[in-house]
Amino acid sequence: MRASKLLISTLKETPADAEIISHKLMLRSGMIRRIASGIYTWLPLGLRILQKLERIIREEMACVGAQEILMPMVQPKDIWQESGRWKNYGNELLRFKDRNKREFCLGPTHEEIITDLVRKEIISYKQLPVNFYQIQTKFRDEMRPRYGVIRSREFIMKDAYSFHINHASLEQTYKLMYDTYTRILKRLSLEFIAVLADPGLIGGEKSHEFHVFANSGEDTIAFSDESNYAANFKKAEALQINKRRSPTEYLRIIKTPIKSIYTLIKNYSIPIEKLVNTFIVHGVNSKFVALLVRGDHILNNIKAEYQSEVASPLKIANEEEVRSVIGSYLSFIGPLGLNIPIIADHSVAMMSDFVAGANIDYNFYLGINWGRDLPLPIVADIRNVVEGDHSPDGKGKILIRNGIEVAHIFQLGKKYSKAMNAIVIDNNGNKKIIYMGCYGMGITRLVAATIEQHHDHDGIIWPINIAPFEVVLIPINTHKYKIVKNIADNLYLKLSIAGIDVLLDDRDISNGIKFSDIDLIGIPHIIIIGGHGLKNNEIEYRCRKNNKPIIILQNKIIDYIRNKLSTNFG
Amino acid sequence: MRASKLLISTLKETPADAEIISHKLMLRSGMIRRIASGIYTWLPLGLRILQKLERIIREEMACVGAQEILMPMVQPKDIWQESGRWKNYGNELLRFKDRNKREFCLGPTHEEIITDLVRKEIISYKQLPVNFYQIQTKFRDEMRPRYGVIRSREFIMKDAYSFHINHASLEQTYKLMYDTYTRILKRLSLEFIAVLADPGLIGGEKSHEFHVFANSGEDTIAFSDESNYAANFKKAEALQINKRRSPTEYLRIIKTPIKSIYTLIKNYSIPIEKLVNTFIVHGVNSKFVALLVRGDHILNNIKAEYQSEVASPLKIANEEEVRSVIGSYLSFIGPLGLNIPIIADHSVAMMSDFVAGANIDYNFYLGINWGRDLPLPIVADIRNVVEGDHSPDGKGKILIRNGIEVAHIFQLGKKYSKAMNAIVIDNNGNKKIIYMGCYGMGITRLVAATIEQHHDHDGIIWPINIAPFEVVLIPINTHKYKIVKNIADNLYLKLSIAGIDVLLDDRDISNGIKFSDIDLIGIPHIIIIGGHGLKNNEIEYRCRKNNKPIIILQNKIIDYIRNKLSTNFG
Repeated sequence: MRASKLLISTLKETPADAEIISHKLMLRSGMIRRIASGIYTWLPLGLRILQKLERIIREEMACVGAQEILMPMVQPKDIWQESGRWKNYGNELLRFKDRNKREFCLGPTHEEIITDLVRKEIISYKQLPVNFYQIQTKFRDEMRPRYGVIRSREFIMKDAYSFHINHASLEQTYKLMYDTYTRILKRLSLEFIAVLADPGLIGGEKSHEFHVFANSGEDTIAFSDESNYAANFKKAEALQINKRRSPTEYLRIIKTPIKSIYTLIKNYSIPIEKLVNTFIVHGVNSKFVALLVRGDHILNNIKAEYQSEVASPLKIANEEEVRSVIGSYLSFIGPLGLNIPIIADHSVAMMSDFVAGANIDYNFYLGINWGRDLPLPIVADIRNVVEGDHSPDGKGKILIRNGIEVAHIFQLGKKYSKAMNAIVIDNNGNKKIIYMGCYGMGITRLVAATIEQHHDHDGIIWPINIAPFEVVLIPINTHKYKIVKNIADNLYLKLSIAGIDVLLDDRDISNGIKFSDIDLIGIPHIIIIGGHGLKNNEIEYRCRKNNKPIIILQNKIIDYIRNKLSTNFG
Repeated sequence: MRASKLLISTLKETPADAEIISHKLMLRSGMIRRIASGIYTWLPLGLRILQKLERIIREEMACVGAQEILMPMVQPKDIWQESGRWKNYGNELLRFKDRNKREFCLGPTHEEIITDLVRKEIISYKQLPVNFYQIQTKFRDEMRPRYGVIRSREFIMKDAYSFHINHASLEQTYKLMYDTYTRILKRLSLEFIAVLADPGLIGGEKSHEFHVFANSGEDTIAFSDESNYAANFKKAEALQINKRRSPTEYLRIIKTPIKSIYTLIKNYSIPIEKLVNTFIVHGVNSKFVALLVRGDHILNNIKAEYQSEVASPLKIANEEEVRSVIGSYLSFIGPLGLNIPIIADHSVAMMSDFVAGANIDYNFYLGINWGRDLPLPIVADIRNVVEGDHSPDGKGKILIRNGIEVAHIFQLGKKYSKAMNAIVIDNNGNKKIIYMGCYGMGITRLVAATIEQHHDHDGIIWPINIAPFEVVLIPINTHKYKIVKNIADNLYLKLSIAGIDVLLDDRDISNGIKFSDIDLIGIPHIIIIGGHGLKNNEIEYRCRKNNKPIIILQNKIIDYIRNKLSTNFG
């Protein structure tokens, strides 16, 4: 394509409302434009990328025998009532009435529609398993749309739904889809992780989220550096497998004018790992419960709430309550001499010679040891994992990264098929409720997530498989050297004939703007015609990824590019 | 693809709510399923056809340099207020509120969104002309959704919008799009016609509708058998260019007991072309006006309303009013002796020796002649055209057919750009309001319209370019002859490798059901393996269009099919 025939609407300035890098670069490179909160138009350049991604997804879905269909965006209330979600879905489900006052919603997902279809069209176990998918526009009325197309209201999703005679068959397709999503994300050169997850509003028995690593990601994932273990950071188990060392210090109490235990350990050069923090929270059987967490760890509310002694939701006692029950300021609380139930984190249970408040204002204990100075309390996992923790599966150590959820797969089991009476006749002539799985992938979001991982200071660096163009030809100094245009046109034709997706930047603008636009847009392979080597029949090649100029003879460039493309990225 | 891996959901019975053939066949062949009134799911087989059509449209749009974008379905109220259509669009515009009580609509068309985009992104005349299009899901809350996807509420449209510095440029692109639509419809082997039309709710200066001929079509088109002339039947000019013959009969009055003039002419063997029908309607300056139309013609309300003497909307006088002003029953009215203004159709003005009521009960005149017996009144075009009329452009004769409107192109001029202040800087540095065109094509409707023209008693006969598969292989008697499966598998592989889109009907069902399913689905080329010629290495080929069996040697079939496909349809 010729750039003069393409809307290249780049922006120098970053729009004020763009917070994260992908949002900024999608706006700046002219991929999308905002229409309303969480609603965007895809410009020609953006749509090329989106459609290349859709093609990859279709290829991979066809590989596993999934059949493409297209379900409507406007869905009637009745089937949502059958599934029970008309009531339960909340405000993200945009409901409205048509001209005849009949109630509808904009589909945020299509379990109801597909289950209705399957209960009508699939009657025998012989027709199972079957896997239907669509690439379709969805709407979720997000409370706070943000980050461009990462959390938009209108978005494009690939949603697949599989149906099975039994759980074993569901498990098999679930595994296939897990592998399919893995392949799709690998084709985008993405670093990602699959995480065992909470099924949420979609429901069912088991689910995995696929997270693309990104600093801007709204989810935090803890995973092993050696195994497949991965979990939501808040839910990852924090097990302390070290042994407790024997006491080496004697117990002593210090009275100081210091108000904070952190100042104390700083002044006394005590490492923070020697400190025990005590949180007084509301209890179930007793009025209050004390939670002990190591000084360098963070209390995990969700885990704490799981403890039967602890009231849920977690409620930390206030200064007044602490004083009434303990007799000291919050800052001076500690486990020694505390007469309420105590739960210690696993890591606290492994501490020796530790430091804590003495439950008397301005008094702290040093050299506290379990068993010797006080009994070991209830031990439980009540803290956030930290990097370097042992992986709960015993293999490797924990790493923590932020991720963008780009896909979510579910073993729905009989949730929808039972509610909506989707049955088949099995091989004994009996009616059986169908097992169901569903598999969503956010296509528009995935484009943004790819940018989060593939960019530099100058702009986007597209993975070759979804780049808007594989190659860009930039003729420069065209007014000075008339031959440049001819060389560029000739090369453009040859590359096109070779089946290479090439952009010819024939815009009548300065070299500088061409270069900065092209870097911003992120086309992987750049050919510059009209520079120094012109007289020697040379042109310049640059890989967007490393930007090193390489001088190549004109008549070698087609082979050079072909070779580059055959080795995938870069 | 293997049929065993494809949802083939054919129906023996025609669903009760399907009125027209395309709707029946789309349901019966398992292309679509209804979710709610005017809302459908596209099953795998239907979607294949839809996507092939989309591909053709994308190819043709790319050919004329149109750029694909994707605009949202959910559109904010504010831009619709700017254009003035929030008020004017009526109930087809489905309006609703989001969770924050902000007003939105489901896009029935995208003039506002694109004009908003262009006023922001296009600043110089140098960026014009430009033509953006999208293939996107629309919603129109039709009062009476019907005929399946022909008049559905949710549908897919290809809508294009072009922008220009002046009217000449708009005219140029308009012509390009006219030609593009012509090419698209020809690639679908459709008989169609482009008709100068009323811009309606979209507005603007000039528009053409593209109608695919079909008996079920809701529009009636009059067109020339020799020229490009075509018009909505109700609006086509009816000019009488014959000359009036001289009188040959004397004027005489007959009194009979006959109540109807039609009975009179039948009894007297007078041809109906000799009869003048007189309609008394409400007038503007006078209380009543008489309209004269030849006995075999039909009064055209719209044309009559155009007459300055005639009240609009047209109101025919009732029996009582006629008696009060004329003094006779309606049946006995005629122009001779009538003392109210008279407007005669062109064809009536050319009559001689004609028959009409005498304005006295049970009395008729025979042998009436203009000039001799009464003066020629006002002459105007007030009737429907009929087949055989001279074309108004003087070339050929009029034919009349029903059509389905599948596309509509508009010269919008400055309608939206002015209302929404879409301007560019021209080559003199002055601000200029942009000229605009828009070009819609109903993709889902076009699929149905194609079926209306391409079917027979057994089912659909797809034009090769959008057939769900080009070729189907039907192995029969597979339980009897084990070799049949091998031959079929082998041929399936060879055809696939040859780049032919082939379906292997490997379903374990009776031969009869296979044949009827495949005929219903309408795959153009059919190969049957396992019939009589099996021992002689022969197989049977059938073209769906004519169903004649042709016996071919197995090793010749690939070339035979290739040859068929290279000559397009059949």
